[in-house]
Amino acid sequence: MQIAMIQDKIVPADQLDSAYFDRGLYFGDGVYEVVRSYNGKIFALEEHLRRFARSLSEIGITALDIDQIRSRVLRAFEAAEIGNAKIYLHITRGSAPRNHACDADLEPNFFLTITELPEKIEEKTDGIAVSTHPDWRWKRCDIKSLNLLPNVLARIDATKKGCTEAIFVDETGLITEGAGSTFFAIFEKTLRTAPLTCNILPSITRKFTIEAGSNIELEIVEKSLTVQEASSADELFIAVTTKDIVPVVKFDDKVIGNGKPGKYTELLIEEFRSFIV
Amino acid sequence: MQIAMIQDKIVPADQLDSAYFDRGLYFGDGVYEVVRSYNGKIFALEEHLRRFARSLSEIGITALDIDQIRSRVLRAFEAAEIGNAKIYLHITRGSAPRNHACDADLEPNFFLTITELPEKIEEKTDGIAVSTHPDWRWKRCDIKSLNLLPNVLARIDATKKGCTEAIFVDETGLITEGAGSTFFAIFEKTLRTAPLTCNILPSITRKFTIEAGSNIELEIVEKSLTVQEASSADELFIAVTTKDIVPVVKFDDKVIGNGKPGKYTELLIEEFRSFIV
Repeated sequence: MQIAMIQDKIVPADQLDSAYFDRGLYFGDGVYEVVRSYNGKIFALEEHLRRFARSLSEIGITALDIDQIRSRVLRAFEAAEIGNAKIYLHITRGSAPRNHACDADLEPNFFLTITELPEKIEEKTDGIAVSTHPDWRWKRCDIKSLNLLPNVLARIDATKKGCTEAIFVDETGLITEGAGSTFFAIFEKTLRTAPLTCNILPSITRKFTIEAGSNIELEIVEKSLTVQEASSADELFIAVTTKDIVPVVKFDDKVIGNGKPGKYTELLIEEFRSFIV
Repeated sequence: MQIAMIQDKIVPADQLDSAYFDRGLYFGDGVYEVVRSYNGKIFALEEHLRRFARSLSEIGITALDIDQIRSRVLRAFEAAEIGNAKIYLHITRGSAPRNHACDADLEPNFFLTITELPEKIEEKTDGIAVSTHPDWRWKRCDIKSLNLLPNVLARIDATKKGCTEAIFVDETGLITEGAGSTFFAIFEKTLRTAPLTCNILPSITRKFTIEAGSNIELEIVEKSLTVQEASSADELFIAVTTKDIVPVVKFDDKVIGNGKPGKYTELLIEEFRSFIV
């Protein structure tokens, strides 16, 4: 590597931080997790670590074991002293001159940040608007990878439309999930969401939401929704680690229910709280 | 941002290089180009800049214009003093705390490296082996984005099989392109490659290869190949900026032709050289 340029400045490449040669940056060659704490306690850490281990294994990064990762997360969380924290962590295949293939013994890069996670109460009490977007993502969305450009483009599009989240619709007209959340609908006493396939992230919050649904005696149906079905649902909501359950009151141009969070969604939010001990 | 952790070391987040907060790293939220020079002259720079401008526009990065980018590339190339150089450049949406959506006025990150590009003569004289891999990529492969994990996974798989390149096969059994190249077949006097759609990169080398094919009076057919068709081709080759045309002599387990570079492929390599002035 002879020369590098950052913005309009020429720099000797060998003096750069290894972050500039991270395969995460060149290829998105890594996987991540987002974990949160409530009142000083990390929620569902083991579930997140298990999923992280699976993502790592699926892309063939094997140098770090889950005990090491757990111990780092706990150490950083303790040092941060933040009660309601968002913990972001990723592991990439490592830093090396750019080449699709790479040495098998490259040292992976571990990176983590911990930030304060303010609760957006108005999203829970008023609900949010969402907009649909074509699902342009890759065919292995069951892997929580750093290849998130389609998610970013969909979210930017949603923001332009005054919406909080984008909901992906595949080529056959079926809803897969949100750009950064799982999508749920309620019809009478049925809770419906897409089944887990390679096109869907096996969301931890999805799992707990389904459990909450069972607890309040909703029937659970894992079957993909069409856009038309979603538009005519009694209630809609999204589920995501950082916000747990958030009511959806507008879906594209369609007002859902009476434009306020639905009664079962509110019961689910309450039931979800019982998991947080 | 209160705390960050790199490998097993806790660091104050505000002391980190902005590269750690690059949206290119978190999301692959950026686009790139690879340009090369032959004997001190950059090949097809304007074609690459035009494609780069289109990629930037498609993902909505608008702050840098092509004249600025051209002038940076030329300045770095001059400073590098490398006759046969590989010039890699990318632009990401910028550095900011991780959030799918972001401020529209975020300053994009420009990054470029220039390295010596040694010619792999034996690949041209002996040909290479390639292996097929399911095409798991996103639905906008016409955008040259940093979301390249499926390409990396396919290339790693190919390397394990002793192959130099992976060839993507879509769900319907049709070949799209290589993990980092365009794929061509020759049947008698016909040169065949997949047509340009959203699943294919509008490769600059593809364009010049087709021009070379016309010059040596091959009939050009832009129609996707099945795996079986490719296996039974008279000749196969890949085309990519850094290597121009490279003969393929083995396709999965099938030896192509007599296991040596085909005569039209050799004519194309020769014809391609005439473009390099």
